[in-house]
Amino acid sequence: MEKVKPRTLSGFMELLPAPQMQMERIMQTLRETYALYGFYPLDTPLIESSEVLLAKGGGETEKQIYRFSKGDSDLSLRFDLTVPLAKYVAQNYGQLTFPFRRFQIGKVYRGERAQRGRFREFYQADIDVIGDGKLDIINEAEVPSIIYKTFTSLGLSRFKIRLNNRKVLNGFFAILGLTEKSGDVMRTIDKLEKIGADKVKDILTGDFGVPGGAADELLTFIQTPGGTAGILDALTRYKGRNEVFDQGADELSTVARYMTAFGVPDDHFEIDLTIARGLDYYTGTVYETAMLDHPEIGSICSGGRYDNLAEYYTDKQLPGVGISIGLTRLFYVLGEQGYLNDKMNTAPADVLILPMTEDLAPAIGLATSLREAGLRVQLYGEQKKFKQKIGYADKLGIPYVIFLGEDEIAGGVYAVKDMETGEQASVPLDGAISRIRDGLAAKNAGTVIVDR
Amino acid sequence: MEKVKPRTLSGFMELLPAPQMQMERIMQTLRETYALYGFYPLDTPLIESSEVLLAKGGGETEKQIYRFSKGDSDLSLRFDLTVPLAKYVAQNYGQLTFPFRRFQIGKVYRGERAQRGRFREFYQADIDVIGDGKLDIINEAEVPSIIYKTFTSLGLSRFKIRLNNRKVLNGFFAILGLTEKSGDVMRTIDKLEKIGADKVKDILTGDFGVPGGAADELLTFIQTPGGTAGILDALTRYKGRNEVFDQGADELSTVARYMTAFGVPDDHFEIDLTIARGLDYYTGTVYETAMLDHPEIGSICSGGRYDNLAEYYTDKQLPGVGISIGLTRLFYVLGEQGYLNDKMNTAPADVLILPMTEDLAPAIGLATSLREAGLRVQLYGEQKKFKQKIGYADKLGIPYVIFLGEDEIAGGVYAVKDMETGEQASVPLDGAISRIRDGLAAKNAGTVIVDR
Repeated sequence: MEKVKPRTLSGFMELLPAPQMQMERIMQTLRETYALYGFYPLDTPLIESSEVLLAKGGGETEKQIYRFSKGDSDLSLRFDLTVPLAKYVAQNYGQLTFPFRRFQIGKVYRGERAQRGRFREFYQADIDVIGDGKLDIINEAEVPSIIYKTFTSLGLSRFKIRLNNRKVLNGFFAILGLTEKSGDVMRTIDKLEKIGADKVKDILTGDFGVPGGAADELLTFIQTPGGTAGILDALTRYKGRNEVFDQGADELSTVARYMTAFGVPDDHFEIDLTIARGLDYYTGTVYETAMLDHPEIGSICSGGRYDNLAEYYTDKQLPGVGISIGLTRLFYVLGEQGYLNDKMNTAPADVLILPMTEDLAPAIGLATSLREAGLRVQLYGEQKKFKQKIGYADKLGIPYVIFLGEDEIAGGVYAVKDMETGEQASVPLDGAISRIRDGLAAKNAGTVIVDR
Repeated sequence: MEKVKPRTLSGFMELLPAPQMQMERIMQTLRETYALYGFYPLDTPLIESSEVLLAKGGGETEKQIYRFSKGDSDLSLRFDLTVPLAKYVAQNYGQLTFPFRRFQIGKVYRGERAQRGRFREFYQADIDVIGDGKLDIINEAEVPSIIYKTFTSLGLSRFKIRLNNRKVLNGFFAILGLTEKSGDVMRTIDKLEKIGADKVKDILTGDFGVPGGAADELLTFIQTPGGTAGILDALTRYKGRNEVFDQGADELSTVARYMTAFGVPDDHFEIDLTIARGLDYYTGTVYETAMLDHPEIGSICSGGRYDNLAEYYTDKQLPGVGISIGLTRLFYVLGEQGYLNDKMNTAPADVLILPMTEDLAPAIGLATSLREAGLRVQLYGEQKKFKQKIGYADKLGIPYVIFLGEDEIAGGVYAVKDMETGEQASVPLDGAISRIRDGLAAKNAGTVIVDR
């Protein structure tokens, strides 16, 4: 038969079993952490009507959309989880209770130019809190605090959440008389870290007609040093000249105070006035998250406050705060940079039972008992040589093997071998279970990410 | 602004938050149960190259494929999880250890005619065990046993796994001289339950030229009564006339014996010689699963043994056993038929903290402590009237509310209210945690499916 070469599309991550186990552990940690904060898990279709998905229209993203016809329908694959959320909330408004808190971990699609570390299919892990008409500022502090908790639970430690407030920027633009150019100015200063202050000034003055003095003042302002305390202090000195600015400064101060109350240590967040975020729809606090030892990676988790989640679908005013982890890219980077915990058990089972008798019934019974005790068990049922059987446990990294022969069955004991140390002991069922449980607790003690 | 009507495509399931919680609980039970049996979780792209995905070509399915172009690429959405598995195993053969056990819970796409209860995007939850060259018969018993365990863990009880063996059928066809028509005969008898014996006979004799006597003998054979024991007994009487038949009869007998050893009660499985399964590639044991009180629904979980998983991609002989739950349809049916446990907590949080003070820091601290104890906590931070705050807990069904005012903060006690009974008690932190934990254990004691 003519064979087709099996291959996976470029830009699509498909992991081997061991790294997939690590990815699963990360996703499970995200699900558990998000759930602790009272978020509903949500699941929306990957395909939407193009009319609905692209209601906002235009923009950079549209070229990247996977769009196609099926029958009479013009369909598109979702390119983020925010637009489907907007649709969901507008569509089910009457049946939801607000503030509506949801998380979603799902794949999204963007037909970007293929290159190393860029994915066309990738997971986003989003949380959003949506208010009906109003939403308290405390949410703008809680959302990044959840991200702090999530990353810490995964084992990441050398990261910092940087935050700013759009009102501070817009207010300052107004003070400088740049309100009409605010979109262009915002997008330009967002490039500061990438292209440097000189280039930003060139663009502001050359492309957008910002007076040189205003550009200088703006650049000095957004680069105000001193960290959170220093910047908050500096902001008070600008107060009284613009209402929006004053409101933004107050919000930043409140958010910083609450983040401390939420348990985010001072060295894990800072106000940074250069953070602008490209997207138009942010209106208040905005976030980025940097890996301190790999700033070149860019933000691993970003988001912010918006005033109008679903304006393309409904007249209802639905303000919210959301943040998104680009999970596939993060996982890729963690792997590349050696952050993934190689010591962690990635075997599909905790115990492999090797039956040494013709009749498999006793081995099956043992497997059932061990599973009832919560252990992940494989029963090796293939007709192979002993060496191959033990080699199977070895290759998969299964930490324990139990040999079950006539003697063991007759004596009601089980020969438990620790594959790492080679130690072997003959113990009754209870002893086998506690031995394996204790050993696993030690072997699985670490976190999936190791970040020193 | 002109609004676009928010809508979800027909044939795409999108659940409201409470049913979504039930669906999540089902998926979590599947993940946990499959993991107990030592299966790797696998995740493959939703999009594949059409050349790869449709390597097998032809067939009913092809018309239903979501197929489209992006740039120069001819792409298709996966329509099951078996073809991507075949691709994965062929592609990564050298890096996998066999038997390779994997589960995958993922969405698949089929552009079926839209009708109630039929979905175009739906979850399949598959397990497969793949051997390299050989695979022991015990797997053919373990796989349906895992399904028994899974359904039982979910709370389903009135179901029965029906099994047959393709070799028994093919052997019997040979005895009747029908080997050359075996594909047509197989597909025809597969319709027995739907269209009845008379119509099956008409098709066999009329369309496929099966002699009337042979058709009668076949229909009598496959309808052999007596359940597992009776049928196994009857099979021995046909033995010695065809080698394939004899092998199939032995296999059926072995599988039945092992299923009992694996703990599947006699009333939850039976041999049924009418089970044929349409798909060509099954070669040994085949399975279907019926809901006893709703036979009209058809099989909720099907699969079987195959000898060649990946013949379109590789010369390697890769036999396997697999089974698949059509999760989205099952969930739909369970909802329609009233099987979902309404008493189960579907709230996004276990506790809602209502701060009664200006300063939210003590409430935030309390939330952190409760989360550290593993409770799912929401902190209500909105500026609303008391009645609206408590109404929020009520609407979401959050089982406990904690009021935190000046007195409580000063006294180090927390006013915990059980929203169901209305009982309220002022207790210290430890007391609050144990009170809530105990209450939740009682409230969440049931299973997600209630099947009496």
